Amino acid sequence: MLEKVNLKASITKEEYKKEASALKEELSSLQQLVKQNKLPVIIVFEGWGSAGKGSQIANLILNFDPRGSKVYSNIAPTELEKREPNLWRYWKIIPGGGEIAVMDRSWYQEISVLRLEDEVDDVTNLRRMNDINTFERQLADNGYLIIKFFLHISQKEQRERLENLANSKNTEWRVTQQDWKRNKQYDRYYRAFDEMLEYTNTTYAPWHVIASTDRLHAELEIYHTVIDGIKTALALKQHRKEHPITPTNIILPGNFTFVPMPKLKDVSLDKTITDEKYKKQLKKLQEELSELHNKIYRRRVPVVVCYEGWDAAGKGGNIRRVAAALDPRGYEVVPIAGPTAPELAHHYLWRFWTRLPKDGHIAIFDRTWYGRVMVERIEGFCTTEDWQRAYREINEFERQLYDWGAVVVKFWLHIDQDEQLRRFNDRQNTPSKQWKITDEDWRNREKWDQYEEAIDDMLHYTSTDFAPWHIIESQNKKYGRIKALKILIDAIKDRL
Amino acid sequence: MLEKVNLKASITKEEYKKEASALKEELSSLQQLVKQNKLPVIIVFEGWGSAGKGSQIANLILNFDPRGSKVYSNIAPTELEKREPNLWRYWKIIPGGGEIAVMDRSWYQEISVLRLEDEVDDVTNLRRMNDINTFERQLADNGYLIIKFFLHISQKEQRERLENLANSKNTEWRVTQQDWKRNKQYDRYYRAFDEMLEYTNTTYAPWHVIASTDRLHAELEIYHTVIDGIKTALALKQHRKEHPITPTNIILPGNFTFVPMPKLKDVSLDKTITDEKYKKQLKKLQEELSELHNKIYRRRVPVVVCYEGWDAAGKGGNIRRVAAALDPRGYEVVPIAGPTAPELAHHYLWRFWTRLPKDGHIAIFDRTWYGRVMVERIEGFCTTEDWQRAYREINEFERQLYDWGAVVVKFWLHIDQDEQLRRFNDRQNTPSKQWKITDEDWRNREKWDQYEEAIDDMLHYTSTDFAPWHIIESQNKKYGRIKALKILIDAIKDRL
Repeated sequence: MLEKVNLKASITKEEYKKEASALKEELSSLQQLVKQNKLPVIIVFEGWGSAGKGSQIANLILNFDPRGSKVYSNIAPTELEKREPNLWRYWKIIPGGGEIAVMDRSWYQEISVLRLEDEVDDVTNLRRMNDINTFERQLADNGYLIIKFFLHISQKEQRERLENLANSKNTEWRVTQQDWKRNKQYDRYYRAFDEMLEYTNTTYAPWHVIASTDRLHAELEIYHTVIDGIKTALALKQHRKEHPITPTNIILPGNFTFVPMPKLKDVSLDKTITDEKYKKQLKKLQEELSELHNKIYRRRVPVVVCYEGWDAAGKGGNIRRVAAALDPRGYEVVPIAGPTAPELAHHYLWRFWTRLPKDGHIAIFDRTWYGRVMVERIEGFCTTEDWQRAYREINEFERQLYDWGAVVVKFWLHIDQDEQLRRFNDRQNTPSKQWKITDEDWRNREKWDQYEEAIDDMLHYTSTDFAPWHIIESQNKKYGRIKALKILIDAIKDRL
Repeated sequence: MLEKVNLKASITKEEYKKEASALKEELSSLQQLVKQNKLPVIIVFEGWGSAGKGSQIANLILNFDPRGSKVYSNIAPTELEKREPNLWRYWKIIPGGGEIAVMDRSWYQEISVLRLEDEVDDVTNLRRMNDINTFERQLADNGYLIIKFFLHISQKEQRERLENLANSKNTEWRVTQQDWKRNKQYDRYYRAFDEMLEYTNTTYAPWHVIASTDRLHAELEIYHTVIDGIKTALALKQHRKEHPITPTNIILPGNFTFVPMPKLKDVSLDKTITDEKYKKQLKKLQEELSELHNKIYRRRVPVVVCYEGWDAAGKGGNIRRVAAALDPRGYEVVPIAGPTAPELAHHYLWRFWTRLPKDGHIAIFDRTWYGRVMVERIEGFCTTEDWQRAYREINEFERQLYDWGAVVVKFWLHIDQDEQLRRFNDRQNTPSKQWKITDEDWRNREKWDQYEEAIDDMLHYTSTDFAPWHIIESQNKKYGRIKALKILIDAIKDRL
């Protein structure tokens, strides 16, 4: 892409003055519309060192009210951050609806400059580029506007700018050995940038390469691009409101290998275990899990355990039997309730990305991201298109956890309708358990058939070979606890 | 304190069994009351290595529903964390109302184990101990329950436990050279622990030293203490609801040196500047600030700029003139609006602690923690006792910023009532400015006199020698911008 750019493009000061103030005012008033329409906006700045990223960002951001805009300076990842999943540190800082996040360097440093300097192998780099395309597609599909700038200058121009900085007492500290090295190896970096730009130049998040020899010219081009991007996104949002996409009923869960799952109605629930056998096995399995917890801690393997299941299926008790075997310094139970206001304003996976375990740690999710294809589907908290698209997004998310090295174990705790009624009544009639039963539980119960259909879909479309579902028959709670422990232990052992 | 503990205390397995299950059930149901009453609870675990912190925490936490309880494992601070203000990393993780935070090690490691191992000088250590007492008092005064355990064992007991761990293949990795060293120097650590326990044993956050030779005995004592602590705190909360503390009208802003401030009515507002002079000075001052920004970045000096002022006094425009001189990679404007639900559930200073700048960076607060003694005072969002206490709490907070090395600059942007009316009308009548004026602005205007009294109090009680207030006459906005820039520049220069 870079060869097509006319680096000589420039304008006079007069031309700049004629246009600039109107554009600035337009940017200011567009931000109000961004807020009103709750549009989340990401503006990425990448480019050569000394191409003027800093001053262009400074110019741009002054047009925005700080209530709703923020600059993120993304430097190379620390050693601790390198131990997190790919893109984790960027998921954390995506904006909410109505906010503008300006990225001073971004996820692109890992597949360009750092790719060369950390000597990243080609397969890893390809995976990272694919992860980025997935990341941006997931954001764009969920209503994010992504505007990406690459500030381009020639090798000669860069050298001159470095020399200017180095020759002034006030700025010489800003020029490092690495800057000179990068300038000398301009061709090598050029090829890496070019590959990056081409591979990640998508319809949903296209690149804008900005000729940055002349700063005034670059500034106006940036303003025009941002204005155009926001206007188009707002128009599209309005259009979608008036013309919602017709549900297709075609679910595309992505190009993965799936493990066949039975329909819920075909699952036999008569499995039991004697009290004696339960006690003995529980103790043995907990000791085994406890030892494995030590091992994954030392080998730095992250473990993500997902609990889903019918209301009153026994998630809490099942989780407690797993937790009892674990050192509290190395695990956390993450209870998932309805999203808070800031969570609702973000991409729906944001609140899960930000609660992943550290490597060597275990996170037990009590309810999960599968709410998207169950309660949100059934209650209409998202559009049909949203939940239909979610199967693929979730599979991609779990794949990224797998690629990171995580063990992902997913349980569906299953009981039948009669058993649920018995347990609901028991809760209702036992004072110390009454807090556990709410009107919502009874309402959900009335929608059993709808849920059953949604759950069958979920099991069918998201049981991948790297993160398969396990149905835990919990009519007999003790049987269910033993089964879950065994599966978790086997999954960890497999990974070790 | 340690010498008073009977390390031989023990119970039989039968005695344990007789008591344990009732205590566990009580803990579980107390958590429901903690939630209902929105009581924030902090339980600290400190003690000797191998004294059993891990397993006691594991036992305790199993009694709690993870929805509302969490274990924080606090290891030694990283290099990056050491560059933050003292206690910053602990402020970040204080619980909200209704939550139980269990601290596996805490702020006490810095004044005990790490004090010896990092060879912290006595003056620094004394300051840290005082900071901790202040921290806990501020939490307790704002309704937090703090329960602190120190798990105590003898040198011999510790050595035997280390030997047991080292002799088993599965656990030998857990015993480090440092553990042996600490055991050998038991007396040295004993003295440091003892000093820590005595100095920080306060009425609002007393220590509970637990004889931990016998684990079952320790477990029950911990349960009893937690139950007793929560019950007392709930009763006290109820009592306060029924018998609120009578306002004393005695404000105790703490033992600091204060800079005398004029009353607002005595501030002359007729200062102006010509357009020509403004343009020239603005350019010169912005260039100067820009260079200073480089210097503080290199010298790692954090800068906290606080903007308060009447509605329509020109905060936004003033801030923009400062920001225009700064590299966006090194500053952030932090707009403060009404608190969100999670912010309301925490100590009122929490949302400011978590938004402090990194060292070498500038944070410009557009409105600040002074809301406590202005809008919250006037609108009754906190009790009279709360805002009267806040002057001292705020002074202590700013002192901690100063001790960290920060430049703290506070501006009050001042205009008179007539000028405000002119500006309000102008906003109302200019379509592009209408979003800037709300009904609330008009309502606040009606309370001008109440605000004036509150502001005079604020200026009087919180203008310390380390963080003095500056009144910025903003009747003429340009004059105000130049004055603010000059003060900021001088403050940074003084610090460098």
